[in-house]
Amino acid sequence: MTLAASSPLSPLLAAIAQRIGPAHVLTDAADMAPYLREERGLYQGVTPAVLRPGTTQEVAFIVEACARAGVALVPQGGNTGLVGGQMPFGQMLVSLARLDRVRNVDPVDMTMTVEAGCILDKAHEAAVAAGCLFPLHIASQGSCRIGGNLSTNAGGTAVLRYGNARDLVLGLEVVLADGRVWNGLKRLRKNNAGYDLKQLFLGTEGTLGLITAAVLKLFPLPAQRTTAFLAVPDPAAALALLARLRGEAGDALTTFELMAAFGVETVLAHMPGTVRPLQESHDWYVLAELSAPTRAFDLGALMEETLAAAMEAGEVLDAAIATSEAQAANMWRLREDMSEAQKHEGGSIKHDVSVPVSRVPEFLERALGAVTAALPGLRPCPFGHVGDGNIHFNLSQPVGMEKAAFIAMWETFNRIVHDIVTDMDGSIAAEHGIGILKREELAHYADPVALDLMHRLKQALDPAGTLNPGKVIGA
Amino acid sequence: MTLAASSPLSPLLAAIAQRIGPAHVLTDAADMAPYLREERGLYQGVTPAVLRPGTTQEVAFIVEACARAGVALVPQGGNTGLVGGQMPFGQMLVSLARLDRVRNVDPVDMTMTVEAGCILDKAHEAAVAAGCLFPLHIASQGSCRIGGNLSTNAGGTAVLRYGNARDLVLGLEVVLADGRVWNGLKRLRKNNAGYDLKQLFLGTEGTLGLITAAVLKLFPLPAQRTTAFLAVPDPAAALALLARLRGEAGDALTTFELMAAFGVETVLAHMPGTVRPLQESHDWYVLAELSAPTRAFDLGALMEETLAAAMEAGEVLDAAIATSEAQAANMWRLREDMSEAQKHEGGSIKHDVSVPVSRVPEFLERALGAVTAALPGLRPCPFGHVGDGNIHFNLSQPVGMEKAAFIAMWETFNRIVHDIVTDMDGSIAAEHGIGILKREELAHYADPVALDLMHRLKQALDPAGTLNPGKVIGA
Repeated sequence: MTLAASSPLSPLLAAIAQRIGPAHVLTDAADMAPYLREERGLYQGVTPAVLRPGTTQEVAFIVEACARAGVALVPQGGNTGLVGGQMPFGQMLVSLARLDRVRNVDPVDMTMTVEAGCILDKAHEAAVAAGCLFPLHIASQGSCRIGGNLSTNAGGTAVLRYGNARDLVLGLEVVLADGRVWNGLKRLRKNNAGYDLKQLFLGTEGTLGLITAAVLKLFPLPAQRTTAFLAVPDPAAALALLARLRGEAGDALTTFELMAAFGVETVLAHMPGTVRPLQESHDWYVLAELSAPTRAFDLGALMEETLAAAMEAGEVLDAAIATSEAQAANMWRLREDMSEAQKHEGGSIKHDVSVPVSRVPEFLERALGAVTAALPGLRPCPFGHVGDGNIHFNLSQPVGMEKAAFIAMWETFNRIVHDIVTDMDGSIAAEHGIGILKREELAHYADPVALDLMHRLKQALDPAGTLNPGKVIGA
Repeated sequence: MTLAASSPLSPLLAAIAQRIGPAHVLTDAADMAPYLREERGLYQGVTPAVLRPGTTQEVAFIVEACARAGVALVPQGGNTGLVGGQMPFGQMLVSLARLDRVRNVDPVDMTMTVEAGCILDKAHEAAVAAGCLFPLHIASQGSCRIGGNLSTNAGGTAVLRYGNARDLVLGLEVVLADGRVWNGLKRLRKNNAGYDLKQLFLGTEGTLGLITAAVLKLFPLPAQRTTAFLAVPDPAAALALLARLRGEAGDALTTFELMAAFGVETVLAHMPGTVRPLQESHDWYVLAELSAPTRAFDLGALMEETLAAAMEAGEVLDAAIATSEAQAANMWRLREDMSEAQKHEGGSIKHDVSVPVSRVPEFLERALGAVTAALPGLRPCPFGHVGDGNIHFNLSQPVGMEKAAFIAMWETFNRIVHDIVTDMDGSIAAEHGIGILKREELAHYADPVALDLMHRLKQALDPAGTLNPGKVIGA
């Protein structure tokens, strides 16, 4: 801690340093840099200090001290958020990274109690060690942290079967705006004793309270798995295939991802070690996976029979079923490396949108038509969780265009894509949240009644406005 | 409408009658009686008028008119609630029963949009007609209505696989305290565009807004089903069996209900047509059902093999697997007729509690010991959703005791049972809600921080306190 003694924040920081230890109050620019850097360079955070409490009580002390001093703060987990919700712009930064314990895993209850700073992959490993599955899977799982996952109601590739982060939570521990701790760490599957308060803090991006720990739902560990990479004629055929697979496999259908050719070709071109699973090129691909905790039936045979029927029906043009872990991993990389691979193709403008599942083909047709009309040579890269109606509608710049000029068109494309989404009763923020990136978009599109309700909640729970101000609803 | 013209409410009721039609403003005692009678006779409602709007706009008109007049109101669905939440005590009664349309069923989206007054069984039928399953199953499904199901976050026998009512909702339409309509009828699987406002109205028993319609999640219709009635040595063995069945069948395990001997014998004694599935009597029974949308594997064979292994392991003493629809129906009646059958055994004091699943055996041991020590001759009838940790801890009076004297002990038993539940980090209201019946219990047991948060929400959304006053948190 090297803050000048003359700073008006000095007494507050000194009190916090005394409570949590001076080593955990960072004020040196180099020490703070990793917390203030946004991966894609969209934002540069600014803060007087990075505070690193180690316990819930220390978080409560900090929040109360800041509230008394009228100082605003921003909570941060793994700093992997895609909408800037974790970034301070002058506020104090509270990193939850040191609260990283797995407090309890209970394979009979099928629950696990973890602290907010626990890295998602560490939670996965703790569940597996108890013979269970924690099914939240997102690209950043090696560095994102549970508190951030819950504060943003993270989605990912397993939502189709297991739901969003919100659906995976039984209980929460939260530090409120005034520093009080609400202990709602119940391990209960059913609890209607009054209002379900945890819902207030899930998906509200730290604007109503700071999540410090959670009870998560666990599931039986899959005992078998079969992965297929498929070429489909178009998105409508993908939906027909989705219905067919769900009808045959039920809940064993745990992944169903749609990808346009451009994205797959981009991965194959730039990501070392990836190989083409199908002989020929096609316009659209699907990654489908079946998994189940039972060996009572053979998922491989079920996949084969279902795909044979789907080819017969014209829903599938060509299919590869992985016969080894390595083949399955390659198929997954074609989907999961897509954002990374896109970086090699210049500037990328991204939309994280959803529409009703049945309207995905219509959305893609309308949106692809509109964006390519707006900028000749644009290379759209739509992909995502088609079974959830969630499309990552990414746009790579035309070859040869100046990157900065392309990125300057972000708002133009926002308006095109989000107008179509809104017209189709969709969402402009399917799984990444609002943060600061989409705050103006939310204000532009949201129903005024809904916005009024959000402001009332903010006023009720954080009347002084010291928790993550300027995020989500901008208050 | 026959209210005396001199009533201070006359102008308000006249305005409402003009808007929704005089035939839908009931003020005659005989007309109002069915809405004010509580099935078990625990409450007798009192109201100046029963209002029966037919559209969301009419509901909004009523709520706004009442708000302007400073008149409180109570929403009511099928009048089947078990905690009195639907009962007015002087307030205006707003019946949602005429809003009973199924607005839309979409088997591709796997969603269904229904109005609040739609009877649950009608929703089931509409889903089946589209080849889908709406999995909320509770005893009152022939008369309860969706709005009430959602307002109370209803549970039931399928929670183990499909979740509570809250988990089955994608969107809501709600009339707010000031009469504005919030249209949140999104058919989206993922939507993180701001706070998830529907959570405010699910499970809050009409104290924060009136649900008028909802988008519900649908599931693939089961293509096969196998039902078993089992004798188990004790609740701990039931939990071991639960883990075994879940491991073998995964999500095909859709029912797992525990019953004590007294309840089963009571059904067999009093409910015509029920027959004993097992030759001998035992202390504890389990009703287990597997169902799945696929015919890719044989659930009957899976059930047989798993139960054989469970008998080998001592988890199951005797087993019957239904070989006909009639046999399966009989097994279900032994579970579902239990509350009805208990009426033949005199007074019954009921608790709807939950604990962590792993602690169900400990809860039963402690609670059974405590209640039988408190009243010799007491005949406990615990049963319920053991896979959710939810026990209906019902107590039948000793033979020969006066019913009124027994019922007078309700608070005594509340304290015994709820103290144990609270000590075990459980819930005093697992699936029936708080209403008025448990309002004092909630105030007694709830964390003051939690109560404060609930009051803040009430203040934020219903500052004048006109929506279902006196329910849940009593404000």
